[in-house]
Amino acid sequence: MKSRIEKVQAYLSENEIDAALITRNENLFYFTGSSPVLGGYLIITPDESTFFVPELEHEQAKEESSVPVEKFKKLDELYEHFKRFKVLGVEGSMSLSFSNQLKEKAEIKDLKIIDELIKESRIVKTPQEIEVIEAACKIADMAMMVALEEISEGKTEREIAAKMEYIMKTHGAEKPAFDTIIASGWRSALPHGVASDKRIEKGELVVIDEGALYGHYHSDITRTIVVGSPNEKQKEIYEIVLEAQKAAVEAAKPGMTAKELDSVARDIIKEYGYGDYFIHSLGHGVGLAIHEWPRVSQADETELKEGMVITIEPGIYIPKLGGVRIEDTVVITKNGARRLTKTERELI
Amino acid sequence: MKSRIEKVQAYLSENEIDAALITRNENLFYFTGSSPVLGGYLIITPDESTFFVPELEHEQAKEESSVPVEKFKKLDELYEHFKRFKVLGVEGSMSLSFSNQLKEKAEIKDLKIIDELIKESRIVKTPQEIEVIEAACKIADMAMMVALEEISEGKTEREIAAKMEYIMKTHGAEKPAFDTIIASGWRSALPHGVASDKRIEKGELVVIDEGALYGHYHSDITRTIVVGSPNEKQKEIYEIVLEAQKAAVEAAKPGMTAKELDSVARDIIKEYGYGDYFIHSLGHGVGLAIHEWPRVSQADETELKEGMVITIEPGIYIPKLGGVRIEDTVVITKNGARRLTKTERELI
Repeated sequence: MKSRIEKVQAYLSENEIDAALITRNENLFYFTGSSPVLGGYLIITPDESTFFVPELEHEQAKEESSVPVEKFKKLDELYEHFKRFKVLGVEGSMSLSFSNQLKEKAEIKDLKIIDELIKESRIVKTPQEIEVIEAACKIADMAMMVALEEISEGKTEREIAAKMEYIMKTHGAEKPAFDTIIASGWRSALPHGVASDKRIEKGELVVIDEGALYGHYHSDITRTIVVGSPNEKQKEIYEIVLEAQKAAVEAAKPGMTAKELDSVARDIIKEYGYGDYFIHSLGHGVGLAIHEWPRVSQADETELKEGMVITIEPGIYIPKLGGVRIEDTVVITKNGARRLTKTERELI
Repeated sequence: MKSRIEKVQAYLSENEIDAALITRNENLFYFTGSSPVLGGYLIITPDESTFFVPELEHEQAKEESSVPVEKFKKLDELYEHFKRFKVLGVEGSMSLSFSNQLKEKAEIKDLKIIDELIKESRIVKTPQEIEVIEAACKIADMAMMVALEEISEGKTEREIAAKMEYIMKTHGAEKPAFDTIIASGWRSALPHGVASDKRIEKGELVVIDEGALYGHYHSDITRTIVVGSPNEKQKEIYEIVLEAQKAAVEAAKPGMTAKELDSVARDIIKEYGYGDYFIHSLGHGVGLAIHEWPRVSQADETELKEGMVITIEPGIYIPKLGGVRIEDTVVITKNGARRLTKTERELI
């Protein structure tokens, strides 16, 4: 089987690109096994690859990187080195400033965006990657347990998030996978209600959406609860979201498209008359980035394959009243989706 | 006095730029008072300004923004809108992908990077901004107090960091200003030793470098301690770094250049024969970004002005043996530098 670097090299030869320049930390880690704090510059040509890192990072990168490492002091040295390339493959996220410098100082004639190649490589996870994501999901489950125990009338959203993030970190997480969302009452109708100083009140819906970054990989889980007894409306939308989420987890399998999977949940919510309140896509890929490929949405016809890791997270949001979202991170296996986040879903 | 937006407008007129497009969250907050989670697009022309935000963010942006807000569904609507511009001023951090889209879909002829204009505006802080940074510094001082109390033989760096970040968050911080550094023993010789699973041992130097993000602004402080009694070498380098740090804080004043300030500390460390072990610049500006202007280094001849907020953080790093760094965030006043982080510096 071709290595990650070999796949890039084959692509370069086929597309007449002299070299690929990789600078995003997540891609540096993916291709070399090392992601220097101060940044690095990975050059892959059809024949060789070199990982340039700042002097201060040289020792550590040499230990971690599977690609030969060279140190540099100033970017000008790199520009000089890059002058032998005319056509350079780069990440689309590269800054306009840096791309201008490459044209001016390194005299690159043409910058070709190779995001598609990186996507094709990263979208299917290896068993080793899935193991790390599963470990990140375990930490997310622990943090969720803390949230379910700690949430009560009178506490602020922020103090709950603080406890959850403390548990993540003491269980090995580098940090939260994203700003922890604790959205209570009217704020639960905001799909991105980052924990605030709002106090949680009795009878409110509380959406808890969190994840951990562990070993460079992300996890993502959402649960929704009511503080005290739910009312009829809260129960109704909870049941619909739960049905949609379970149906989508059941349905997910290799060979169907991301769009088809989105439809499984969306059709159920529509049938109950809440289609206009499910205002985002069903999910997204998870890996070295918290949001990656595929997008599980009406706009993405990517075919699901064994080894893809995605979230399944339908929601219903009723302005002012509140919202419900239930989300798991799952891996696509030949037998269907396997949940990597395992917190109980019957919470209302 | 001209408003922030008016300054941009004057610049556009002088430089024959049809409009500025701002998309970085920190700049959106700076110019509008709002920074939507899902992103936004601020257009400033010489005569008017409009803040485009995704539908989901419309309500909140309307409440927060000092600039008229309009919602959009798809980027294509914006490209259509931007077609009336030929020359567009943009941030240098804009992605190559997006800049390509602006050229293709919005038919922009020329993208001019306006980072210098944004720098000129943001580099000097208003009294209101300094108040928020001072509040962020208070939280950093609290977290440092926790570190000084908690660090002891046998604990891991990560569990100390977890406690510090918990205190930050429960005291109002949105999150840590950057990945908390707890670097003990040989790791203290790494200037960026993010807290790891290493256990802290007796007799080790421990560098603690941390800050809080509060109200969109950052703080930054470093202290170094020894667990137990320091040896002669540890005492020696500590005293030198402390002398250099105090001298630079004493010397900082309006009218001198950033380079001159860097030299104050660097010369002292050189005199003691440790010049080769002070392997980074003396400091950096702090504000809506953790690292901003000026760079307090040999390469930056920016004149210090009243209202600039910078760090002063000399260090000595001896590979394998360990390192010492002492850092405060300070504001330049007409009477010199005022320390915003206030934790005691005599710790060894």
